[in-house]
Amino acid sequence: MKLTILGCHSATPRWDANPTAQVLEVKGHLFLIDCAEGTQVQLRRRKVKFARIKHIFISHLHGDHFFGLVGLISTFRLLGRASDLHIYGPQGIKEAILMQLKLGNSYTNYKLFFHELDSKQPQVLFEDDILSVTTIPLKHRVYTNGFLFQEKVGDRILDIDKAKEFDVEMSYFQKIKQGFDVPDTKGNMVANASITIDPSTPKSYAYCSDTCYHEAIVPQIKKATLLYHEATFLEQHAALSSKTMHSTAKQAASIAKLAGVGTLVLGHYSGRYSDYEAFKNEAQEIFSQTQLAQDGKVFDI
Amino acid sequence: MKLTILGCHSATPRWDANPTAQVLEVKGHLFLIDCAEGTQVQLRRRKVKFARIKHIFISHLHGDHFFGLVGLISTFRLLGRASDLHIYGPQGIKEAILMQLKLGNSYTNYKLFFHELDSKQPQVLFEDDILSVTTIPLKHRVYTNGFLFQEKVGDRILDIDKAKEFDVEMSYFQKIKQGFDVPDTKGNMVANASITIDPSTPKSYAYCSDTCYHEAIVPQIKKATLLYHEATFLEQHAALSSKTMHSTAKQAASIAKLAGVGTLVLGHYSGRYSDYEAFKNEAQEIFSQTQLAQDGKVFDI
Repeated sequence: MKLTILGCHSATPRWDANPTAQVLEVKGHLFLIDCAEGTQVQLRRRKVKFARIKHIFISHLHGDHFFGLVGLISTFRLLGRASDLHIYGPQGIKEAILMQLKLGNSYTNYKLFFHELDSKQPQVLFEDDILSVTTIPLKHRVYTNGFLFQEKVGDRILDIDKAKEFDVEMSYFQKIKQGFDVPDTKGNMVANASITIDPSTPKSYAYCSDTCYHEAIVPQIKKATLLYHEATFLEQHAALSSKTMHSTAKQAASIAKLAGVGTLVLGHYSGRYSDYEAFKNEAQEIFSQTQLAQDGKVFDI
Repeated sequence: MKLTILGCHSATPRWDANPTAQVLEVKGHLFLIDCAEGTQVQLRRRKVKFARIKHIFISHLHGDHFFGLVGLISTFRLLGRASDLHIYGPQGIKEAILMQLKLGNSYTNYKLFFHELDSKQPQVLFEDDILSVTTIPLKHRVYTNGFLFQEKVGDRILDIDKAKEFDVEMSYFQKIKQGFDVPDTKGNMVANASITIDPSTPKSYAYCSDTCYHEAIVPQIKKATLLYHEATFLEQHAALSSKTMHSTAKQAASIAKLAGVGTLVLGHYSGRYSDYEAFKNEAQEIFSQTQLAQDGKVFDI
């Protein structure tokens, strides 16, 4: 899994700070998460092959998370896109996009599928052999979901030397990877565990923006390899944070600690701050494995 | 009049090329003309005091001319704007903007006035003592207007030395500027022309994007001080230009020549070109006073 931060600031686009958008690459998949104004320019700037994006996940319908979507959809049309595009987001997103395309008489020539969300329970949005994507119901001023990207347990890893040692024919290799015991050339069964090793632990990425401090998400994001949790404010502005239903760096770290995640990445900084190290310091007092999101930064998960 | 080009490219925003938006400053007024995605960032980059913008003119509802509007409106809200904002644009613009603000539960706390247009005749949109703004009906794939900004004839300029020489009292100076003949201290009438000079010729700016070659606009833009006319293509792509209802550099120059404008500025270049000098060269064969728009370029009119 490779996460590229296209923008990690709140509220308004500025010339040196982009509002929220991220790209997650998982074994050939390229998922776009949120799409603020300017996202298509950031995709080009970061040299993301964005024609490969087939699924876009929108957390909520505040401008700093979705005002770039209609432009990206239009650009796909202008670039001659042919493949389907799936948009997952709160109810209303379909009408907002289609109305604008209609006004410009600019309907797409590729297929656009909207998956509108209104459930307050976790919901599987996408699933294949490689991973699943599930909503993480968040608590904000409008209906909002985070997204949990979970790799599936891979095939067992064949130890070829051991397989030769146990005299197992090559034609069984696929079965072995799938976890079966298989016979050797004399017909004696060979235990799968003797000739395979465990596959690598599946990785997971939990995206949680925007939300107030909300412990209800902890069971769902438990042990996530990487958690991106918004930290719009520092504790010194806890009252404002609470009023606007955002989180402080300390609160993000508390969630990370409760969930026992691998790494916490902070972002969605308010424009009032210029020293982002203060976010890291505040969070690290509670959860040491904290890093800062930064426009253009890449996290290998 | 001072015209700042915020973006002058067609179709899609790129990291080094912005789609259409311009700011026109006229004696204290700051008018925004079109508002593509990224316009608010360009306003900041060019250090335009954009809180001063009170009137926004949208030519048509293609994304490269209006996808940045909802973001700018939202940013005004976040910056605590209190003054009214007037938006002039094609029918449908109001619903498109308000729907998005509603979805984010983010209505403005300042007053937003929409002036929706559907007339195919020139229409005065704004008028005060200084200038008027009139639509220029254009011909494109969707309903489109250009905009004509015309300064009014100013007061006559008082020649104070002459006024003293003719023994006219100061209390008459305002009347003199308004063009009246006034008495001297002995009661003899003094001809206005003897103690004033002509005010400077009123300037005008005609904005014409997007449009195919459309001679019908010529009478309206006759003798404009500056004409911005789209030139999406070069003549080598005349067929494509015609099909998409755009203009070539040559056609823009022909319009400028027919209208006898002072200066022609070209813009709205298609992304297929990298050498913009070719646009200038093609146009200058017909109309020598041709210049190229360029992101960030300022024209003193």
